[in-house]
Amino acid sequence: MVVTAPLAVSLGDPAGVGPELLIEAWARRGEEKLPPFFAVGGAGVLTAAARRRGVAVPIRRMARPSQATGIFDDALPVLDLFDALYLPGEPEPEGAAFALSSLTEGSRLAAEGAASGLVTGPIAKALLAEVGFDHPGQTEFVAEACGILPEDAVMMLAGPSLRTVPITVHAALAQVPGLLTTALIIQRATIVAAALKRDFGIEAPRLALTGLNPHAGEHGKFGDEEQRIVEPAVAELRARGIDATGPHPADALFAPRMRETYDVAICMYHDQALIPLKTLDFDEGVNVTLGLPIVRTSPDHGTAFAIAGTGQASANAMIAAIRMAGECAARRAL
Amino acid sequence: MVVTAPLAVSLGDPAGVGPELLIEAWARRGEEKLPPFFAVGGAGVLTAAARRRGVAVPIRRMARPSQATGIFDDALPVLDLFDALYLPGEPEPEGAAFALSSLTEGSRLAAEGAASGLVTGPIAKALLAEVGFDHPGQTEFVAEACGILPEDAVMMLAGPSLRTVPITVHAALAQVPGLLTTALIIQRATIVAAALKRDFGIEAPRLALTGLNPHAGEHGKFGDEEQRIVEPAVAELRARGIDATGPHPADALFAPRMRETYDVAICMYHDQALIPLKTLDFDEGVNVTLGLPIVRTSPDHGTAFAIAGTGQASANAMIAAIRMAGECAARRAL
Repeated sequence: MVVTAPLAVSLGDPAGVGPELLIEAWARRGEEKLPPFFAVGGAGVLTAAARRRGVAVPIRRMARPSQATGIFDDALPVLDLFDALYLPGEPEPEGAAFALSSLTEGSRLAAEGAASGLVTGPIAKALLAEVGFDHPGQTEFVAEACGILPEDAVMMLAGPSLRTVPITVHAALAQVPGLLTTALIIQRATIVAAALKRDFGIEAPRLALTGLNPHAGEHGKFGDEEQRIVEPAVAELRARGIDATGPHPADALFAPRMRETYDVAICMYHDQALIPLKTLDFDEGVNVTLGLPIVRTSPDHGTAFAIAGTGQASANAMIAAIRMAGECAARRAL
Repeated sequence: MVVTAPLAVSLGDPAGVGPELLIEAWARRGEEKLPPFFAVGGAGVLTAAARRRGVAVPIRRMARPSQATGIFDDALPVLDLFDALYLPGEPEPEGAAFALSSLTEGSRLAAEGAASGLVTGPIAKALLAEVGFDHPGQTEFVAEACGILPEDAVMMLAGPSLRTVPITVHAALAQVPGLLTTALIIQRATIVAAALKRDFGIEAPRLALTGLNPHAGEHGKFGDEEQRIVEPAVAELRARGIDATGPHPADALFAPRMRETYDVAICMYHDQALIPLKTLDFDEGVNVTLGLPIVRTSPDHGTAFAIAGTGQASANAMIAAIRMAGECAARRAL
C-alpha cells in the first residue's frame, strides 16, 4: 500500500457541529476504517467539544502535519496553531475568524502536499463575510488557494445511492435558463469525467445529463433548451470520447433502475441535483470539489447551530467525507 | 361496512401496458385486497392481453356496472360496449379512438354514480389528439366531464413514502416564475387541504410549501419569489385555518426525518414534486385528481409501448391506484 500524507480537516465554525463531528469521527476511526487525519487548529475547542459530547477522545497537539500519522492511533492530532472558545450554538465574529484561519491553513497544507487532501467543516457564510471573507463559499476559496479559477472547480454531491452535479448552483430559478449554455455544460462535464477517472477509479465514466424542462420538454412542447443547449453538449462530449447520454427527463432519472445506468447525473440546476441526493442520502451526502489540484471534500450539511452541542448531530456525513477524501488521495498517489 | 358501487377502470391505449396491468391487478385482487372493479370496454383486448401475459384470468362480459360486484370474485367484469384489436407496442388511431371511448364512458359512469370512482389507464396524448382529443391530459378531460373547470382539478402524486402536488405542471421552466402567483398557490392548496380531509381521512392535514429558489432563496439572496409570492400564500392559508408551513428549501424537504413533518408537499413546479416521488416510489406512484365531484386515480406512468406485451411492466402502480380509489370512495360513502 502506498503511504500518503494525512488528511487535513478544517473545523468550520466552532459554534457549529464541526468540532463534535470531528471528535465522533476519530472515535469511530477503527470501525469506519478511516485514514489518518488531523485537525487544523482548535485543540481547546476540540477538548471542550469531546467533553460536551461525552466521548473520551484524547487530543494531542503537534507542530508538523507529518507527525499526525504516528499519533492518530492513540489520539486526535491537532496542528497547534490557533484556538477559540467553544460556545456551541452561539456564533460570534471571533469564531468566524478562527474558522477562516483553519480553512486558510488547511488549504495551504493540502496545496503544498503536507496533507494529502482537505476535508472542510461547515461554516456560516454570513458571519465569515463580516471578517473579510468575500467568496460565495468554501469551494471558491479553496479553488483560489490552489491557483484555480472558481469556474474550473466543480461541485459534485456523492452519497451511497448516487452522484449528482448541478451545472448552475446558487442562482435564482428565473436566472437558470439564461445562465445555461452548451459551453458551460461541456466545460463542467469534461472536468467531471476526468475526475471520476482520476479520483474515483472509474475508467470510462457514464454521464447522464438531465433536461431543463418537465419530461425534458417533450420534443419542444414545454421549452426548447433541450434541443438548443443540452443536445449539442451531449454530442460534443461524445465526440470527445466521453460516455454522455441525454437529455433525460429529470423526474424519472433517479428511480432505482435508472440509477444503475450512469455513474453521475449532470443536472441543470441546484434542486434538480440536490433533491434526489438529499432524499436518498441525507445523512451521508458528501460535497466533493472536482477539478482541483488537491483532493477536497466536505460533509453536505451546514453548521446546524440549533443542535450544536446537544449530541444530536449525526457524524455520518463527516465520516463519509473523510473516507472519500482518503480514497481519492490514495488513487492520486498510485 | 358501507357497500359502494364498483370502480370503473378505463383501459388506456390498448397498445400500451394498460390492459395487461388490469389483468394482473385482477389476478392479485385477493392478496392485494382490492375492491371490486370493472373494465370499461375491451373484452377482446383483455382476453388477448391475459393470454399474452400468461395469466389465467376469466373475462366476463356484462351489460350494467351494477353486475360487477357479483361477478368480481370469479371473473374480471367488462362492460360490453366496444372493443379493439390487441396489438401491444403498435399504437394506431383505432386504438386511440378506443382509449377515448373507454375514458369518456368511464367518466360518465363515475359522474352518474354507477361507478364509485374512476381509475384511468395510460394514454398516448399525441395519438389521441389525432382522433379529436383536445385536452392537455386525462385530468382536464375528466374535470370537464364532471362540469368542473380544469384549473379547479389538482394533480397530486401519492406513493407509500410521500404525497406531492406541483402548483405549475407542464410548463417550460423559464415560464414557471411568471406563472406562479399567490392566488394560484392559495387556490390549489385549499383544494388539497379539503381533499386530504374528505378523501384521505386526514382531519387536519399538514401542508409543507417549498420555495422556488435554491435554499428557498436564502433570505432573498437568490430570487425573491419566496417573500413576494409564497410567504403571503402561507399566511393566507393559515388565516383560513389550514396548517400550512414554508417556504421550505426544497432540497432538504424530502429527507426521511422531514417527510414525517407534513402530509403533503406543495411544490412550485413539476420536477420539484415529481423527482422525490419517482425517486422514492417509482413503481408505486399514483396520480390522484383532487377537487372533483368524483374519485379519480391513475397509475403514475405512461403507456410504455416499448415493453407492452413483454410481461415486464410492473402492475404495482395500477394496483395502488385501484386500492387508493377504493379507499377514497369508501370514505366519501361514509
